[in-house]
Parts: sequence; C-alpha cells; structure tokens
Amino acid sequence: MLRSHTCGELNETNIGQEVQLCGWVQKSRDLGGMTFIDLRDRYGITQLVFNLETDKALCEKARELGREFVVQASGIVSERSNKNAKIATGNIEIIVKQFSILNPSEIPPFTIEDQSDGGDDLRMKYRYLDLRRNPVRKNLELRHKITQSVRNYLDQQNFIEVETPVLIRSTPEGARDFIVPARQNPGHFYALPQSPQLFKQLLMVSGFDRYFQIVKCFRDEDLRADRQPEFTQIDCEMSFVEQEDILQTFEGLIRNTFQMSIGVDLGRVERMTYDEAMHQYGSDKPDTRFDMRFQHLNEQMKNSGFPIFDQAEIIVGIVVKNQSEMTRKQLDQLTDFVKRPQVGASGLVYVKYNNDGSIKSSIDKFFDSTQLLNVLKSCSACEGDLLLILAGHKDKTLKALSDLRLEVAGQLGLRSTTEFKALWVIDFPLLELDEESGRWFAKHHPFTSPKSEDITLLESNPGKVRANAYDLVVNGVELGGGSVRIFDKGLQEKMFEVLGFTKEEAQHQFGFLMNAFKYGAPPHAGIAFGLDRLCAVMGGSDSIRDYIAFPKNNAGKDIMIEAPSTIDNKQMADLGLKIAE
Amino acid sequence: MLRSHTCGELNETNIGQEVQLCGWVQKSRDLGGMTFIDLRDRYGITQLVFNLETDKALCEKARELGREFVVQASGIVSERSNKNAKIATGNIEIIVKQFSILNPSEIPPFTIEDQSDGGDDLRMKYRYLDLRRNPVRKNLELRHKITQSVRNYLDQQNFIEVETPVLIRSTPEGARDFIVPARQNPGHFYALPQSPQLFKQLLMVSGFDRYFQIVKCFRDEDLRADRQPEFTQIDCEMSFVEQEDILQTFEGLIRNTFQMSIGVDLGRVERMTYDEAMHQYGSDKPDTRFDMRFQHLNEQMKNSGFPIFDQAEIIVGIVVKNQSEMTRKQLDQLTDFVKRPQVGASGLVYVKYNNDGSIKSSIDKFFDSTQLLNVLKSCSACEGDLLLILAGHKDKTLKALSDLRLEVAGQLGLRSTTEFKALWVIDFPLLELDEESGRWFAKHHPFTSPKSEDITLLESNPGKVRANAYDLVVNGVELGGGSVRIFDKGLQEKMFEVLGFTKEEAQHQFGFLMNAFKYGAPPHAGIAFGLDRLCAVMGGSDSIRDYIAFPKNNAGKDIMIEAPSTIDNKQMADLGLKIAE
Repeated sequence: MLRSHTCGELNETNIGQEVQLCGWVQKSRDLGGMTFIDLRDRYGITQLVFNLETDKALCEKARELGREFVVQASGIVSERSNKNAKIATGNIEIIVKQFSILNPSEIPPFTIEDQSDGGDDLRMKYRYLDLRRNPVRKNLELRHKITQSVRNYLDQQNFIEVETPVLIRSTPEGARDFIVPARQNPGHFYALPQSPQLFKQLLMVSGFDRYFQIVKCFRDEDLRADRQPEFTQIDCEMSFVEQEDILQTFEGLIRNTFQMSIGVDLGRVERMTYDEAMHQYGSDKPDTRFDMRFQHLNEQMKNSGFPIFDQAEIIVGIVVKNQSEMTRKQLDQLTDFVKRPQVGASGLVYVKYNNDGSIKSSIDKFFDSTQLLNVLKSCSACEGDLLLILAGHKDKTLKALSDLRLEVAGQLGLRSTTEFKALWVIDFPLLELDEESGRWFAKHHPFTSPKSEDITLLESNPGKVRANAYDLVVNGVELGGGSVRIFDKGLQEKMFEVLGFTKEEAQHQFGFLMNAFKYGAPPHAGIAFGLDRLCAVMGGSDSIRDYIAFPKNNAGKDIMIEAPSTIDNKQMADLGLKIAE
Repeated sequence: MLRSHTCGELNETNIGQEVQLCGWVQKSRDLGGMTFIDLRDRYGITQLVFNLETDKALCEKARELGREFVVQASGIVSERSNKNAKIATGNIEIIVKQFSILNPSEIPPFTIEDQSDGGDDLRMKYRYLDLRRNPVRKNLELRHKITQSVRNYLDQQNFIEVETPVLIRSTPEGARDFIVPARQNPGHFYALPQSPQLFKQLLMVSGFDRYFQIVKCFRDEDLRADRQPEFTQIDCEMSFVEQEDILQTFEGLIRNTFQMSIGVDLGRVERMTYDEAMHQYGSDKPDTRFDMRFQHLNEQMKNSGFPIFDQAEIIVGIVVKNQSEMTRKQLDQLTDFVKRPQVGASGLVYVKYNNDGSIKSSIDKFFDSTQLLNVLKSCSACEGDLLLILAGHKDKTLKALSDLRLEVAGQLGLRSTTEFKALWVIDFPLLELDEESGRWFAKHHPFTSPKSEDITLLESNPGKVRANAYDLVVNGVELGGGSVRIFDKGLQEKMFEVLGFTKEEAQHQFGFLMNAFKYGAPPHAGIAFGLDRLCAVMGGSDSIRDYIAFPKNNAGKDIMIEAPSTIDNKQMADLGLKIAE
C-alpha cells in the first residue's frame, strides 16, 4: 500500500503518529516561511505543512507542486494552530518529512472545485476531471448506496437477481430498437433490449417466483433533453400476487431505500386513482409536497356572461395561500408563463382575496363581489389568498394549470429538494386512442391486465377499461410503474385483437411468450423503476445526467471518447453491410 | 397474496392450520380411494391429499389435473402416515378442502424432473420449462448468492460500484467488437465493450480510488464450445496500491465468496510464478487439487541411445501414485489419448515400479534396471508407482503432459468438484511473440506494467520482460486476471512503440486515456473475474451455460426467441444501411 491512511481519516487521536498519504494537490499557499498544501483524495483533504527554515530544500521542492499533481508524502500528524471546523481533518496537519511526485499534471482545463469555472461541454469532454469534483463524485456514491440497499432489501425478501440477455431479438413495437449486426449470420441482427419485460415474464413461467435485476436498457429515440440512449432500470416481477401485494412490497422497498441511502423516513405512500389525480392535479404524476388542488368552477362561473368562460369546456383554478399581494408585474409574468407555447393557455384570470376582506380580480366586469366571494369560499380561500383561474379545452387546460401550479409552487419555495412525498397512482386506463390513426394503444404495454370488472367493456367501450396498473410518483416525478400481467392465453389474444394485431403479427412478435403461456403460467405482476431518475430525485437534482458516470449528450454522443465513430471498411465488410447511398 | 405459505415451508409445527398454497402439479397418484398430488414451487414440494369417500366431487376434479397445471389449493395441514425424510415438508400433507385451476398446461415437451428426458436442443428451445427443473434453478440461485456476497464484501471494503457505458467506441485491438449503427449519425457506429478497461482506468484518474462493477461484456468471436458472445465480469480497480495489495484484497474477496455462498473455507491461496507453473505443471493454470508435478528428466535420460529421447528437446514425466498395476489396455488408451491431434504427442513411455521392487517399462531395450531405478528415485517414486514420460519439442510436450496429467487425475477421481484449491499465478511475461508476423503482442493488455527491474530489457530482450500481472486459478480454471497498470505517460508511449503502434495509431485508439494521464494519474492496478466461470467452478460444473438463465448456443443463437433475426426494411433504411451483395 502506498499510503498508511487516506486523506479523510486523520484527527486529534492520531497526533504524534508518523503517517504516509497519497493524493492530488488541491491548493498550495506560501505564507512567509511556510508552505501549506491541501492534499485531496476521495475521502477528504489533509493539510501538509513545509517549513522553509527547518528544511529549505524540501520546502522549495514543495513550492514547485502544481494543482492536481499526484503526491506521496510522509510526516508527523500535528495539532493545527489555525483549526478548520468545516472539514473532518481540520484539527490536524502533517509536518512533512519526505515526499515524492508520483505523477505531475498539466494545468487542468477547469478548476477542480465544488463550483467549477468549466462550462458543460468542457466538463463533458474532460469528464474524468469533472468526476474529481466532490459534488459529482458524491452523486455516484449516492447511486452506489441506493443500488446496494435496493439489492439487500430485495434479497432479504427472497427475490433472486437474474441476468437476462442483452443481445436479443428486435420487436418493432413501441420505441425504436438499437440493432446489432450478427457477423456470423449475415443479414441477421440482434437487438438491444428496451426492457427485460418478456424475459421476466418467462422467469415467472419458470417458477422463479420473485425476480429482480438492476439492468441497462436501450432506446433509440430521437433524443431530447435529459434522455439517455442507455439507462438503468430496477426491474422486478412476482408470482401469485395481486396488485395490493405489489404496492405493499415496493412501498417497503422505496421506504427502505430512502431510509438506508439518505436517512429519510418517507412515511406512508399515499394512493390516488388516475382519475382523481387528473381531476385534482391535472397530472398523472402530481407533486404532492404541497396542496394547491384544482378547484373546478364550471358550475359557479359558467354562463355568467364572460365569453371566455362561457365558451370554455372547463374552468379550473388553484388557490395560492397568502399571495393576495402579488404585484401586477408578477401576475403578468405568470400570464406570460401560461401563454408559452409549451403551456398553451390563452390567458390567466386572478381573483385576489385581500387581507381587508375586499376582492380584486381581472374579471370584475363580469362578476360582482358577492359572486366572487362565493367562488372564493367554495374554494376554501381565506383572506390574503390568491385564486388563479384558467379556462378552455379540458385536457389542455388541466395540463396548463398543472404547469402553472408547479411554477407558482417553485417560485414560493414549496418544492424543496430535501422534502419527499411519495404517491401511488393506480387504476390507469388500459388503452389510449391515437387520434390520427384511430387505433387503440396499450398505455402501459400489451401484457397489462384489465380490471376484471372492466373486461366486458373491452369491445364496447375500450377507453373506459381500467388497468391493474400503477405508477410510483415522488415529488411529481414518475419513478416507476408496472402492472398485473395477463396470464391467460385467451385474454392475451383478445388484447392483441383490440390493439389491432393480426394473429400472425402477434405470433411473430410475441410468439415465444404465447407459447410459454401454454405450459402453466402463474398469475404474476411487476414493476420497474428508473434508477437514474430515482437517484436524481433522491439527490435533489432535475438532471439524471448528474448521476451517470459517463453520460451521453443530448445528441447521443459521448464527446470524451468520441462515440459513435466511423469504423474500418474491413469491419463493415466482415459484417456484410454497406452504407446506403 | 394468492397463498398463505410457499410449498417449501410447512412442517409438523403447522399441523392443524388452515393454509392456502399455489404451485405446479409435479406428480399425481391415485391409490385406491385417495389421490395424492405433489405441488411444486421454487421453495419445495408439498403433498396434497384428496379422499374420494369424503369429497367425491373434489377428488374427481383433482384426478383431472395434468402435469404442470397451475393450482391454488386450500386445506388443513395434517401429519403424514407415510413420512418422506428426503424433503423438508415430508412429515406433513394438506387435506384439501378447496382448489382451483389457475392455469392449465399442455403436456410439456420433456419431463420437469432433476433428470429430464429432454435433449439439449429441446431444453434450450423451451428454456423457460428447463428453468423449472431444480438443478437448473439452483444454479441460478447460486449465481445470485455469489453476486450478492461479492457486492457486499466489496462494499464493506469501500469499493464503489460504478456503471460504465455499454454504447462505446470501437477499438479494433484484440477480439472483434460487436457494433451498433447510430441512426442519428449515419455512417457512425457505437461498439459494445469487450471490457470496461479504459473506463475503470479513467475512474482511477478521477480519484474513485476503489471501483468495481458486475458487468456484461461482449466479444464477437468465432464461437467455440462454452463461449458466449455476452458474458459477465466482476471488474475491479484500485489506486495507490502495489501488486501485493491486490493479491491480498482479492484473496479476501474470493475466500469470502466461497465461505458465504457455498460454505467452503478455501484456505490460503498459494502463489506460484508463471515460470514455475510452466516448469512444474506445463500450464499457466495448473490444477493443484493433486500433486503429480513434472519430473524433468533430460539430464538422466538423454544421450542413452534411445533415439526419441536423444532427439527430444525435453524429456518430462509424471509419477502416478499406486498405479504400477495399470493394465496394458489402460496404458494403450492413455497412449491413444496423448496421440490425439488436440494433444499432439507422438507416443507415451511408461516405467512401472512394481510392488515387489521390480521394474517394467516400455523402454527396457535402452535403459537397464539400475538406470530406471535411479530415474524413479530421483522422481521420488515408490514401489507401486507408475512413471509416465513424454518427450519432444518443449512447448508442445509440456502442454501434452499437462493434458495427460489432467486426464489421468480425472480417471483416478482426483478432480473432485467439491474440493477446491486456489492459486495465484504471478510474474507473467509482459509480451508474447507472434511467430508469423514477428510482432510482439501484449500478453495481458497494452496497459500492463512491466516489472521495474525488467524495464531495461524492453528493447534488448522483450521476451524476457516480466509483467506485474497475475491470474487467479481455481481447480485448473482461470477465474480472473489482472495487472498493475502503467500510469506514466512516457512508459506507456514506450510500450506502444514496442507493440508496433505508430504514434498516430496509439493516439487514435487510446488517445483519451493518454490525454487523461496528462492530468495526474495515480498508480493503480486491477483485476477482472469471469462470473460465469466462477459460478461454474463453485457449482462443480464444466459448463458456464448451466449458470446463465438464457444462454446462446455454440452458433451464437438464442433458439428460444430466435435471435438473431432479420429486421424490417424500414429499420435498415432508418439506419442508412444496406446488406452488401
């Protein structure tokens, strides 16, 4: 071992000991006859001291050390005169007797500090240097902690981790597959899995009973911000269970993970149906850290002579507590916000319930104070509160108010990244209609089981069929989702029919699962969590990229290693492929 | 939950309880007025009992159950009159009051028994049924145990598991890469990693200090028996360490893994240099469960008038204890064995040291008894032992005798799959000469550090340079290997030069690592274990395929899902590719 201790562990109890440390030069200061060097490793920072008077040669050599040089130093642990309470090793320093440069360093292209001066692109190109920064490394340490605690919990619950193959068969349903030419079978291709869905269902057919896997998945999508072509799932499946068992088991998992990884007691995970969530929050992944539920105002405000309301399919508002004194400018900014094309509302109505009991609104012309007071009362607004109202087409307006709710809450500091609120959203619709093609698509996937009481609606009213499907939402982010699966061959065939598959198409794409179901498939259900997103939420970040060691950029490129790249003509020839003209 | 208990947990303490079980029908027997059904799940088998007299309808319904039907049954736990000591639940049975068929089953194409009547191909096609068999499932349970204990051990040792990317850049060195067309960058390709080697070294540059990952790797090789295009490694790297630290840390890992996963105390891991291993066993992965070391006999047996020995570069033998009475037929079979083209010897010489002190050999014509006695004594052979001798070209003969040694030991039962002997082979040669091209290749990989005392030989005598490289061998199987890495840019450039890379080639292929090394790379070293092989050795099998849930066959195909397969023309067009004519 080139060191006796790490740079994070020495303290007063070690005073007088001779130690040897290795690490990187974080910072160097010359103060009169002394030189101080902060030596850094993964575990912390320890101060090295050199005295020009007592050892001139050594001190002068130390003064030549540049930032990020790799150094091995030995000396005596001493008490600091000038203690630093901010770091664990702040009470001691090392009086260096000897040191050597293990490796010099060029001046790094950006500062290796918690707040770096490097821009995004530069830090991505030199990701190995960005990873030296504490906040970035801590993110990956958190990710490790999370996966360890997930594995240990599931292991204790009798789940077996089984690796499913990465080189599989392309099933052109849903997102696009990445494909891999099979050199030894010219004209044939493997595909990379978008999820291990079919394999985990086969494992249930095999009697594995409780399966999990933390596994890379791949989607060749047109990239948008914060999407990665490769991502990691915590993939789980159980046999002989009902929806309730899944909700309880994975509520256990998620609570344990928060407790073990970041010491947070998540509390009971609330439950809400999809319909409730849409009605009360206009979203199937509501942020429930704060209330601000939707107030449906059609009954009270429609047909009152205000044309915009009268023509609207829906009039819906939120009460913002204690914000009746919001300025004109702030309200204008919110109006601009809702009018952005991504949000898409045509305007914003406000009603201020002032502290003195008076009411001020942008629709005073159409509603008198009594009417408005009744509206406020029905929304449980108090003096000092502000009511914000949107109106228009139903789906669009719900979505716009949901966006506004999050925006306002963000401005008011109600979306703290250290507070966590978890929610099961249940009873999702089984199908959704593609307006353009008029075809029904599986909202979750084609193996999701309809609620038994809704099966009769499959033909008569497909849009009304609810699924045994559930999402876990934390702080307004969907962290996982799953469903009870169809395990009956007949129902599965019916489902393919509703989805517009011919028998041949169904057989071609999912034949091996259908075949497996002939030999005694057990009732089963499962769930998959997005690990990258789980880490980001637990770490309090919006960006999954912060929790991936070597992420790709928004164009799907790794600019550090320059991938993707061209390949040799010989490699192309070996694969029997040509670039199309 | 559709069950109150599993099929493996009920015993006398549960007698009288009402329980509900789910599982598959393993076996059904009608004995007079009774029907007995063995219900199976992952956890065990429980006997269900139906009585024709007490409930005719139920019993008759039970008699219609076929093999592998999925059943839910409830009833009362009762003591068995006819106990079965072989299974955990053998003292009880369930007097069934009610049951339902959750799913019927067609007759499976082979029997779901420990010894199945299904051939390899059939069991691969219906792998989901093969996985129902106890021995197959137990293999995967062992794999899970192994990975769990590996992760927990490394976590306790402060290692961080970091996921490295799967979509990387092709580096056409070593084996062939699988490549992945990048649809959004026409003409560009990702490659699947053969190992995370470069990334783990970058993580050391990043100061991660201790990294590990259990990770899928990919090699597009011409397949041979027991090779898989995708395989799993336990990949590890440490900073600020020397070879000794690696050997100790991972001896700890491997001992802990054996202890925790299969309850075996592996004992101290012996060490042997590559040169010793080749000299004493003719192999760099000797099986040390038994002795039978090589006896080098040039000095005593050359130039004695036996032309084959006189012309041989090397004369080398093994003493087989207590086998002087081996028959002519057995010796002929061994001679046939060494003459097989895969082994390649031209013949086999034997010397029997009989129990009565007499000597009988196949070379009596050229050596008298005194000469042979001296040879036997020098080999520490005793009365009753057999000396087997090969002679010829050095490398070929060592290899052939190594094969013979394993064959003989196998025949004598010296290679028990429940006995384990681990060995570090160290001081591998850094380079090996490709006879054809006259080029030197890195025996391990181009980042492996030469022993510092041998660096001066790099130019003068490259073949003599030893590396800081090590393999872990258990029972004659290489389970892992690694090396201390070069962390000095100058030495790395020198190494590329010796390997015949131009500056441009080195920059093109490994530029990003070389660039990273400019910014303070720490001394580092690592190792990677083959998880599939580790499982096979610990499970006592020769075949890694037994420890993979969904393996590919020797042609690289998954015959269950029929991968690889053709893809849509549209997919090809999207990728900008054409099949070459």
